[in-house]
Amino acid sequence: MLKYRKGLSDMPAYDVAERDWRIKLNANEAPTSLPPLVEERVMARLSRVAFNRYPNQEMEDIIAQVAENYSLSEEQIFFGNGSSEIIEKLFFAFGGARHTIVYPEPSFSMYKIYVKAADANGVPVGLEEDYSLDRERFVRAVKENKASLAVVCTPNNPTGNLIPLSDVEYIAQNIDCAFLVDEAYLEFAGEKESAVPLLAKYPHMIVARTFSKAYGLASARVGYMMADASIVEMIKKAFMPYHLNVLSLVTADVVYQMRDEFMPRIYMLRDECRRVAETLKAMPELTVYPSYTNFLLMKYAKAVELNEYLTERGIGMRSFGSAPRLENCLRISMGTREENDIWMKEVKRFIEEKR
Amino acid sequence: MLKYRKGLSDMPAYDVAERDWRIKLNANEAPTSLPPLVEERVMARLSRVAFNRYPNQEMEDIIAQVAENYSLSEEQIFFGNGSSEIIEKLFFAFGGARHTIVYPEPSFSMYKIYVKAADANGVPVGLEEDYSLDRERFVRAVKENKASLAVVCTPNNPTGNLIPLSDVEYIAQNIDCAFLVDEAYLEFAGEKESAVPLLAKYPHMIVARTFSKAYGLASARVGYMMADASIVEMIKKAFMPYHLNVLSLVTADVVYQMRDEFMPRIYMLRDECRRVAETLKAMPELTVYPSYTNFLLMKYAKAVELNEYLTERGIGMRSFGSAPRLENCLRISMGTREENDIWMKEVKRFIEEKR
Repeated sequence: MLKYRKGLSDMPAYDVAERDWRIKLNANEAPTSLPPLVEERVMARLSRVAFNRYPNQEMEDIIAQVAENYSLSEEQIFFGNGSSEIIEKLFFAFGGARHTIVYPEPSFSMYKIYVKAADANGVPVGLEEDYSLDRERFVRAVKENKASLAVVCTPNNPTGNLIPLSDVEYIAQNIDCAFLVDEAYLEFAGEKESAVPLLAKYPHMIVARTFSKAYGLASARVGYMMADASIVEMIKKAFMPYHLNVLSLVTADVVYQMRDEFMPRIYMLRDECRRVAETLKAMPELTVYPSYTNFLLMKYAKAVELNEYLTERGIGMRSFGSAPRLENCLRISMGTREENDIWMKEVKRFIEEKR
Repeated sequence: MLKYRKGLSDMPAYDVAERDWRIKLNANEAPTSLPPLVEERVMARLSRVAFNRYPNQEMEDIIAQVAENYSLSEEQIFFGNGSSEIIEKLFFAFGGARHTIVYPEPSFSMYKIYVKAADANGVPVGLEEDYSLDRERFVRAVKENKASLAVVCTPNNPTGNLIPLSDVEYIAQNIDCAFLVDEAYLEFAGEKESAVPLLAKYPHMIVARTFSKAYGLASARVGYMMADASIVEMIKKAFMPYHLNVLSLVTADVVYQMRDEFMPRIYMLRDECRRVAETLKAMPELTVYPSYTNFLLMKYAKAVELNEYLTERGIGMRSFGSAPRLENCLRISMGTREENDIWMKEVKRFIEEKR
């Protein structure tokens, strides 16, 4: 009998390989690859990579770009393999025995897992009936549990709602542990909703961002954190050297340089979100939640059955099984307009048949 | 005061950015980028990536190749961000409170760090005067400390020597904890020295490999483990979903398909190792250790001074500061023949001046 780490056997294993969906709407990916002009520049940059060399200057280059964009110092920024790795390492860095991490529920499903991997104590704070966050209750949970880290996700995944910036600031004002604001979908809500400008005022605050959603770069696994330089200095210790490869870094570097090219896509996806929500609302059986992202959460008494029906037709949505507060919910990433018309027709057909 | 994980502040932070060396010999990288034919195919494959999609089938594709090559089942193989991440996660999976990890010293400098990151107890076993491993002493240390994981590195970094396969098997026979054989440089010694065929006989054995050295793919950060399927199943739990990006995976996939193209380079580097060692041995001030890798370890009373001299001339070698058993040692990755001639001339000049 091998002597594994305590608790490891209870951790879930991920098998990310999945079927070939005709219309894939289950991972909040962008529906199309890079804009052609961006892809051309990415390929040109990749062709200049010294494949034989370990990462060196590449992270500094992209950090310099982000620093300039947000008027931060370069010491305030650090990159990881997706914001997933950023979150994993933050949980590790503020975790361990007798360390408590407070997070909302429902929210990003990995928070619970990263708490476990960090050997920490997790305290979920239930969102309200409409999935809004009760800031008072959240602050109280952080204080009562003497948390080492508090996390919010805004706009929240998988519910789509935004936590008002005034609530984010209220929380920052009223807790003194590390406070992570996970802004994976922020670009869809608009930069004016971002907590980044608050970093200067609240040195215990951390903002996480990703290239996987608005910048459509899920393949490359690139995300980053912004925080006080003293926090970044500590979090770096949790990363192994050369953790982020050159190919992903230079790809993200080009994408960030050309980020204006993504604005039409971001607007298109926001518009699709509105259009699709309006269409779905015409069906009284469905509850569609307001979204500030590239996805919609919808509730329907026969959601499980509907999901099976769609799966048979090659349409992949995200269902949450028995996850708390997400019973009978489906999360739908926005596809292209054509894709959305196809799956909405199927949803309509299913619902009318079941009436 | 933020409440960080206990021990985090003692961990080192890595700043991998370094100066522009004229001749870079400090990281055991390949001296040239990919063979042109391979690079062409890599670029063609990269141009077909769906940048907007999370990793899906790509890891299974490369696993299938490795499985076929070694006649293993696909469940026996798993990939990570360099063998570094494989090792980090193995240490995590067999670490935690009251878990001991036994490793040789001197060896890969990260073992010590990963022990710490895993909250485990590390027991280094000193190598002999000639850097060989006393298998009896190693087995005794594993047993006396009731280790959960034992690690050897063969050929050993940074000393270059090979642990005879019979010694590796002797250790496997005489310990019953998990046993990691780190074969980062194995391709330079030749496949016949590999412990992979022993996996069938010793289900507590794990072999780690990397694409960074013989396959010259340090930029992409790709490594893998081979072990009994039950071990792989447990270790997977320590990895986050989508931990390895698509760009690195498809690049490694092409490289592995075309691995025969790398044989001339591997032979060239082994030949250079021999040629350089012979040349250096003509200088009685130098001790040059036998190497089965793409690097040489050399000892010289004025190594620190020599390293400064070379640094001033843009030649980067690896010196180990005050690391145990590596005082006055320099590790030199083989460059091209031209590069090696240049730095050897400088070494010769320095030594003759100091006589």
